[in-house]
Amino acid sequence: MTRQTPPRLTPGRGRRPAPEVRRATLAAAADLLFSQGIRSVTFEKVAARAGASKVTLYKWWPSPGALAFEAYFEAVQDTLAFPDTGDIRRDLTTQLHAFVDLLHRNGSVVAEIIGAAQSDPGLATALSEQYTRPRRDLAVERLTRAREAGQIREGVHLEVVVDQLWGACYHRLLLPAEPLTTDFADALIANLFLAITPTTHRAR
Amino acid sequence: MTRQTPPRLTPGRGRRPAPEVRRATLAAAADLLFSQGIRSVTFEKVAARAGASKVTLYKWWPSPGALAFEAYFEAVQDTLAFPDTGDIRRDLTTQLHAFVDLLHRNGSVVAEIIGAAQSDPGLATALSEQYTRPRRDLAVERLTRAREAGQIREGVHLEVVVDQLWGACYHRLLLPAEPLTTDFADALIANLFLAITPTTHRAR
Repeated sequence: MTRQTPPRLTPGRGRRPAPEVRRATLAAAADLLFSQGIRSVTFEKVAARAGASKVTLYKWWPSPGALAFEAYFEAVQDTLAFPDTGDIRRDLTTQLHAFVDLLHRNGSVVAEIIGAAQSDPGLATALSEQYTRPRRDLAVERLTRAREAGQIREGVHLEVVVDQLWGACYHRLLLPAEPLTTDFADALIANLFLAITPTTHRAR
Repeated sequence: MTRQTPPRLTPGRGRRPAPEVRRATLAAAADLLFSQGIRSVTFEKVAARAGASKVTLYKWWPSPGALAFEAYFEAVQDTLAFPDTGDIRRDLTTQLHAFVDLLHRNGSVVAEIIGAAQSDPGLATALSEQYTRPRRDLAVERLTRAREAGQIREGVHLEVVVDQLWGACYHRLLLPAEPLTTDFADALIANLFLAITPTTHRAR
C-alpha cells in the first residue's frame, strides 16, 4: 500500500534534537487522543503526524497505551497544580473544581486509559509510577502542610483523604450513576470538613 | 473440526427448564471467571461447561463480558448485603469489611470487569443498570434510615457518602498505590464520622 507522507508539524525534519522530537510526538499523540480517542493512538499514526520515525517511538514507549497516557499527562499537568494560599479548604475547592472540569471535558479519554490499564500491565505500571503515585504525593504534601498549620487534626490518614476526594471523583467517572459536578466536589469537601454526623454523635 | 461433547455438570440434559439452565450457566461462568479470569469467559467454553447450547447464551446475554459480570454479581450478592442493627457506624463497618475482603480475594476480576466496561458499551450498560445503580440504592436506603434515626445530620448528600466509602475502595483497586485493607475501611468511616478538621475549625 502506498502512503503519502503527511505534512510535518515542526520544521527541521531529520535534524531535530531528541527532546524536540519527543515534544512533537507527545503533542501529536495528544491531538489524536483528544479528538479520536485512545484507539486512534497507534505508533504508526503518531509517528506520521509528528514527523518522527516509528522506530524511535518503539524505543521510547513500551506500548501505544503508555504513549497515550504520557501525552494525556503532559497536556493536563498545569491544570492539575495544587495551589497553596494557606487555606486548605479553599485550595482543595480550587483544585477539585479544576479536576472535575477536566474530567467533564476529557472524561472518556481518562476512563479509557484507566480501563485499558486493568488488562495492560505495561500501561498499569506507567500509570502507577508516573501518575497515581506522584499525584497522590503532591496531594499529601499539601495536606501535610495544612495539618502542620492546624487545619487538619492529628491522627487523620492523609492518604485516605486522597481516596475520599479525587478517588470519589474517579468512582463517578468509572462507575457512572450520579453527576460529576463542582457541586459534587463541594459536597465531598463538606462531608470531610464538617463530618456527616450530628455534633451530639461525634464521640471519638 | 470435530469436538467431543464435554461432560455435563447437571443431570436431565436437554430437558432442563430455562431457570435451571440459567443457573448452571452462571455457575459455570463464575467458575471460569474466578479460576482463569475474564478472558476465559467465552460463550463457547461456558456453554460446554454448563451443558447448555451456545445459541441460548447468545439469546440471553449481549456479550461474554455481560455474562461474566452477571455471574460475578450472582456469586457475591449475599456477601454484599447491607445489615441493619440500628447502629449505622457499626453496620457500615461490617459491610465495608466484607466488601474489602471480597476485593482482596477477587479484586483482579472486578478490576477487569470495570476496565472492560470503559470500552464495551453493552457491558457498561449492564454494569450500570444491574450493579452500580441498585448497589447505590441499597446503600442510600440504609443511610436514609440512619438519617431518620438522627445518626446522620440533615443536609448531607447520601449519594456522596457512597462515593466516599465504596468509591474510595474502588479507587484503591483501579488506581493501585496504597493497601486496600479493613484498616483503610475503618479510616474512611472515621474521616466522615469525626471530620478531618480540629473541632475549632468546624464552622459551617
